[in-house]
Amino acid sequence: MAVVPLLTDEDASAEALAVFNEIRERRGTDYVNNFWRALAHDADHLKAIWEKVPTVMAPGEIDPLVKELIYIAVSTANNCGYCIHSHTAAARAKGMTPSMHAELLQVIALASQTNALATGLAVPVDDRFDVSSKSSK
Amino acid sequence: MAVVPLLTDEDASAEALAVFNEIRERRGTDYVNNFWRALAHDADHLKAIWEKVPTVMAPGEIDPLVKELIYIAVSTANNCGYCIHSHTAAARAKGMTPSMHAELLQVIALASQTNALATGLAVPVDDRFDVSSKSSK
Amino acid sequence: MAVVPLLTDEDASAEALAVFNEIRERRGTDYVNNFWRALAHDADHLKAIWEKVPTVMAPGEIDPLVKELIYIAVSTANNCGYCIHSHTAAARAKGMTPSMHAELLQVIALASQTNALATGLAVPVDDRFDVSSKSSK
Amino acid sequence: MAVVPLLTDEDASAEALAVFNEIRERRGTDYVNNFWRALAHDADHLKAIWEKVPTVMAPGEIDPLVKELIYIAVSTANNCGYCIHSHTAAARAKGMTPSMHAELLQVIALASQTNALATGLAVPVDDRFDVSSKSSK
Amino acid sequence: MAVVPLLTDEDASAEALAVFNEIRERRGTDYVNNFWRALAHDADHLKAIWEKVPTVMAPGEIDPLVKELIYIAVSTANNCGYCIHSHTAAARAKGMTPSMHAELLQVIALASQTNALATGLAVPVDDRFDVSSKSSK
Amino acid sequence: MAVVPLLTDEDASAEALAVFNEIRERRGTDYVNNFWRALAHDADHLKAIWEKVPTVMAPGEIDPLVKELIYIAVSTANNCGYCIHSHTAAARAKGMTPSMHAELLQVIALASQTNALATGLAVPVDDRFDVSSKSSK
Repeated sequence: MAVVPLLTDEDASAEALAVFNEIRERRGTDYVNNFWRALAHDADHLKAIWEKVPTVMAPGEIDPLVKELIYIAVSTANNCGYCIHSHTAAARAKGMTPSMHAELLQVIALASQTNALATGLAVPVDDRFDVSSKSSK
Repeated sequence: MAVVPLLTDEDASAEALAVFNEIRERRGTDYVNNFWRALAHDADHLKAIWEKVPTVMAPGEIDPLVKELIYIAVSTANNCGYCIHSHTAAARAKGMTPSMHAELLQVIALASQTNALATGLAVPVDDRFDVSSKSSK
Repeated sequence: MAVVPLLTDEDASAEALAVFNEIRERRGTDYVNNFWRALAHDADHLKAIWEKVPTVMAPGEIDPLVKELIYIAVSTANNCGYCIHSHTAAARAKGMTPSMHAELLQVIALASQTNALATGLAVPVDDRFDVSSKSSK
Repeated sequence: MAVVPLLTDEDASAEALAVFNEIRERRGTDYVNNFWRALAHDADHLKAIWEKVPTVMAPGEIDPLVKELIYIAVSTANNCGYCIHSHTAAARAKGMTPSMHAELLQVIALASQTNALATGLAVPVDDRFDVSSKSSK
Repeated sequence: MAVVPLLTDEDASAEALAVFNEIRERRGTDYVNNFWRALAHDADHLKAIWEKVPTVMAPGEIDPLVKELIYIAVSTANNCGYCIHSHTAAARAKGMTPSMHAELLQVIALASQTNALATGLAVPVDDRFDVSSKSSK
Repeated sequence: MAVVPLLTDEDASAEALAVFNEIRERRGTDYVNNFWRALAHDADHLKAIWEKVPTVMAPGEIDPLVKELIYIAVSTANNCGYCIHSHTAAARAKGMTPSMHAELLQVIALASQTNALATGLAVPVDDRFDVSSKSSK
């Protein structure tokens, strides 16, 4: 199921095909996954997202594998099945072990549980958590 | 605003007060935050959550600070204002720097963006992401 | 905060005021809560919602108090702070005890936790749960 | 997969069948889609929803095609796969071009991204955005 | 589709298999559904969830069938397809009739509609709904 | 409340201040709203978002006012209070009348209602809505 055709190399515009080829090159595989083939109807958007991902997911103060764990957490809470599948695969490729995956799910499950409690009880935020007017200097 | 009174030490049951005192002791502070005071109407639930949190958030294959980042990510996607406030404070207490916070938000924002695209395009999961029937041995 | 003025009786149109007066009469109070005052900018919509609520929430095979518990559950999962507040008040008015409230929150918290696990693991629905093609006769 | 049988014309009650026939007539097709067949277990609800849709989606100050774009946006944010599929088809039938679809997805993706940032940063609403107490006159 | 293999009895650890056997015994069936087989990669988590469910869902001030209705409501609002399927089946097993199911869906649909209105209008919570500082004595 | 200080002009870095000044210039106002002041801790992210917004929201095949309506719809479904406030204000500035606002809310409310029904019934997508393998040529 999809609401747009998944563009094959033949159907893709020259601009989109160029991104497909970059995907192949950077990842060292011939396979271009469905997300990019669906997004390819808007070659500019495809290119923008494709170029942004490595910038955001690059090593920084947060480790790339940790960034994948965060990505999975967001995708789970947002209930994006595609994203859960693709980023769980990506996390494994970057070294996520079964034990790490299990711990990740425990944190996601605990957070979902306490999120529901704080929301259902409508707990007011403690004044001490407010830093809106603190000077950053 | 809250849908239940935030129980003071005086209003709390003996069981709930015992948890409040454990909170004070473990954290080395006299302050018991609103979440626990709201949850204290159900002393068993209060005790169960309070005892579960350190187990899940303890050091394991995933670092405690990383677990806090994941907690913030889930709370943001679930839109739990209380949880975002309390776990951003907790993450800072465990060493989250402003730069790490900024990177975290970049990953959350990127994931939210691509989640929306994968969902809005109804992208079918690639067969290669399916591991449901693979042997785990 | 609100994105529209909360209409006073003076500001409301004749049609909206008529609904305000029905609210007062049916509930035996002079107070018209903010939801209706915000919705009053669209008197037709106000009237439609106001007339629909008692039909759906009326005694049927499901008890009115149980319907309020379900309403709170949906509002919590949807994170509608206003709705959580107003329907927790409504549930109390219909007999929800503190113990029932505590049990309700336990179910909501458990469901939120297992929802996150089923989603994060992308568990495929068991064939036996599918009843789409069963005859209803 | 479904949690109820999709009622065939034979299985449907007389009241539900009458709605199916109205669907066929108004749309000029013999096909009744799954949503209505699933909802048909509650013929009153089926009839209420079926009669409400054209009222809300009718031309008004907002164009019917624009209303479909808004419907897709809500369905995407709510992650309703069925609704995304059916309303993307409906939008196309009302004139949505591939370029409009691409722009729609760009707006949805941008909003999802900034929603996450405003939520994750817990940005307080600026006083100037509050119009709750302004007179509407 | 799933992001982990669904563990067969042969693939499961001794601890996980023990839980599978408890599931079989308590339910009087040989069938272990996919949720537990997916969760079994983390035998401790599997055991904790499995032991928690009957405690929360047990008869109390809220009837077990009502608890299932609440579970379905949360799962629907959270859009957990697996949970909707499994708990609709569970509710039926506990006595949910087609009419109760229809009423449940009407409440869920009404709550979703008014949640969207209260949220979209950003309706401020009425002071009278705030009970945060009321004494519970 | 906020989890970061809202940066004043004095607290902001030179790069962030430059964006603040662009905001002032483009909007013809001295006021810089809280979203940008909160985001300013990450000047690169601030600049990227600020530059992306006008590109996505610019006139195209979809009218700028319509784009604001879509933005409100997404923000409502995502329950981003800040975004609902700021984009309702933006839509008004671009010409949204009270009647258009009322119609918008009707569509959002209807979509939320039918989203819940399609999800709660787990309605399978009709084959005819699937266009994943259709040629786009």
